[in-house]
Amino acid sequence: MLKVNPNYEKLPGSYLFAEIARRVKTYSSENPQADLIRLGIGDVTRPLAPAVVEAMVKASREMGEAETFRGYGPDYGYDFLVNAIIKNDYQALGVEIAFDEVFISDGAKCDVSNVQELFSNDAVIAVTDPVYPVYVDSNAMMGRAGEYVKDRWNRLCYLPCNEENGFVPPLPDRPVDVIYLCYPNNPTGTTLTKAQLKLFVDYAKHTGCVIVYDAAYKAFITSDAPHSIYEIEGAKDVAIECCSYSKTAGFTGTRCGFMVIPHGVVGMGGNGQPVELNAMWKRRMGSKFNGVSYPIQRAAEAVYSVDGWQQCMANIHYYLTNARIIREGVQKAGYTVFGGVDAPYVWMKTPTGMDSWTFFDKLLHEVHVVGTPGAGFGPCGEGYFRLTAFNTLEKTQEAVERIQRLGR
Amino acid sequence: MLKVNPNYEKLPGSYLFAEIARRVKTYSSENPQADLIRLGIGDVTRPLAPAVVEAMVKASREMGEAETFRGYGPDYGYDFLVNAIIKNDYQALGVEIAFDEVFISDGAKCDVSNVQELFSNDAVIAVTDPVYPVYVDSNAMMGRAGEYVKDRWNRLCYLPCNEENGFVPPLPDRPVDVIYLCYPNNPTGTTLTKAQLKLFVDYAKHTGCVIVYDAAYKAFITSDAPHSIYEIEGAKDVAIECCSYSKTAGFTGTRCGFMVIPHGVVGMGGNGQPVELNAMWKRRMGSKFNGVSYPIQRAAEAVYSVDGWQQCMANIHYYLTNARIIREGVQKAGYTVFGGVDAPYVWMKTPTGMDSWTFFDKLLHEVHVVGTPGAGFGPCGEGYFRLTAFNTLEKTQEAVERIQRLGR
Repeated sequence: MLKVNPNYEKLPGSYLFAEIARRVKTYSSENPQADLIRLGIGDVTRPLAPAVVEAMVKASREMGEAETFRGYGPDYGYDFLVNAIIKNDYQALGVEIAFDEVFISDGAKCDVSNVQELFSNDAVIAVTDPVYPVYVDSNAMMGRAGEYVKDRWNRLCYLPCNEENGFVPPLPDRPVDVIYLCYPNNPTGTTLTKAQLKLFVDYAKHTGCVIVYDAAYKAFITSDAPHSIYEIEGAKDVAIECCSYSKTAGFTGTRCGFMVIPHGVVGMGGNGQPVELNAMWKRRMGSKFNGVSYPIQRAAEAVYSVDGWQQCMANIHYYLTNARIIREGVQKAGYTVFGGVDAPYVWMKTPTGMDSWTFFDKLLHEVHVVGTPGAGFGPCGEGYFRLTAFNTLEKTQEAVERIQRLGR
Repeated sequence: MLKVNPNYEKLPGSYLFAEIARRVKTYSSENPQADLIRLGIGDVTRPLAPAVVEAMVKASREMGEAETFRGYGPDYGYDFLVNAIIKNDYQALGVEIAFDEVFISDGAKCDVSNVQELFSNDAVIAVTDPVYPVYVDSNAMMGRAGEYVKDRWNRLCYLPCNEENGFVPPLPDRPVDVIYLCYPNNPTGTTLTKAQLKLFVDYAKHTGCVIVYDAAYKAFITSDAPHSIYEIEGAKDVAIECCSYSKTAGFTGTRCGFMVIPHGVVGMGGNGQPVELNAMWKRRMGSKFNGVSYPIQRAAEAVYSVDGWQQCMANIHYYLTNARIIREGVQKAGYTVFGGVDAPYVWMKTPTGMDSWTFFDKLLHEVHVVGTPGAGFGPCGEGYFRLTAFNTLEKTQEAVERIQRLGR
């Protein structure tokens, strides 16, 4: 009989958000009158910007005419979008990225989970703790995380982030090959300063490891935190960067993102020679991917138009207002809170002695508010809880009032 | 230094179609006046059906309104599309597929290359020879193909298909875990009868291996060849099926496909217990994928509408006419040809003693026609050449006339 990949059965329970959906569904079916407010999953609610919709409609119509129809596009994305990214995401920051260092994809989740294919099977992986589960699960599925014992993987190097260290991860305490960093952070909503990020870049240069940097939430930055790891000197030799239109432009259901792999990022091949990760990814994309839908790439391009950008930023402002309302309101209710200034996420401490899934059930059952238990993001997430700013202003305000009524 | 996946450097040269593009580009830049006709890559040229475009436009506009906006969709695809597939692709054939056995994706290329993640690293893979390169490359990237020695991978089990056996693959001559089959076949354009396919289903049942069946070209079937492997009794216990809208509805640049994994398909887990591949894929999709763009899924749904289907089938008929013109015309020029009846591909023998890349260069340089050398599809493809029916009728006729002028 076919032997399957044995690593899947090591994965604990179901994917975090599937488990949340299950609990919510059970409660809803037993309490159909409950008016739930969802501040759980990080999914946007504002419609796409008008300029983006118009671009998608126009491109859809082009696909219906022989003269303008497009078949297979370049695996790595259309020139128009790659050039818009180089100009707007990088040149605007004073960063030069070459045309063939950008790869368009159907979203950052796919990129951050597929990029592990480039690493050797015995690569040692470091992740912050708490962490977006996809980095962990995609490596666990290839066996790199080892075994799941109690509440952690025994081959992962966890970088604990907590109130005590201000959610600034320490450098790894043992040799690692890859470090995943996400800033502004999901789930903590916090950022790193350039100086703090530089420590990681320098460490990677010094030790020869590679950083996978997830900048999916960069559009929410209001402070002077870096928008790209390439603002840090030397990062183009050690870092891959993933970005997404999901949060910047509400593309969670539209699906487009991109990854940057500078030519300077190298690993060691099986023959001991250095290999560009860019060349490997190019081969991977050419052999296993067929590009992103043309109308969707046109929609992404329109994000950078004058109107499109203004409209998208108005949505970001809307969500940041929600984040402020949550942060201030929950704080007023007596909770300790973090994040929510440069990110759509507020990270709060659960009441003393209450674990995060218990707090999840309490909020769900008593005030009908859905959040995300910190334990779902890793062992150091225990004792914390994530609220997202992606609901409407009205629902957000009501959710905060409910939490205030509940008290601590 | 990070050690990279050592299997990438074992891959020979570049991906087949990248190499063709390179040769064409070189020739074009040196001969800018040459009027090239491309019958090489299997890319469609007819615009999307009007009903499909209207559905995409309507869904794009829905994304711009708060009431109809959609964020993250179900990882496995929207109900409306899954149900349309169950009804039109399967119930119409008398095949019952359960709702949770269908997974919507951004195309069959991604599916057939990602599905190998479910197999153990030491699984033995069988492929027909010649074969669509993606099955081979995706497994080679994980080391399952072994080493590339001369013109073949030393760990793959090749099932040779040639004029002598009528392009009907023999059963594997040694134990294998997975067999990839594609019918109507790319590149040979031939099909298997139900009886021929049943031999493989029975073999898989008997030996415990799994069949990955690629039915991307089923819309071109004009004979009584099976449209789905599930028309064969017992196949739901041993076969995964991949389908795509790329060729059925011209979605090569629009990107949508689906994979069916019946609950009956099991492998053996690391603990020796049977594991459903359906459950593994569900986990894989939930952890590493975020669904297909909503407007694209609506476009795919419209393929099944009365107007949409009629319009798509008119395009298929157009391409099948081209296939007939190529088949008959090239035959008239003295070549031995196969396929082109149930498929958009005509598989011709190269002139005696001429290898397929030489014939590629000869056609390119002397009559400015681009085809695909058979050697690019595997060792048994040597001595053959693929022409595709996806150009316009006029260009197809002219290409055939040029080949006739060239003679043998």
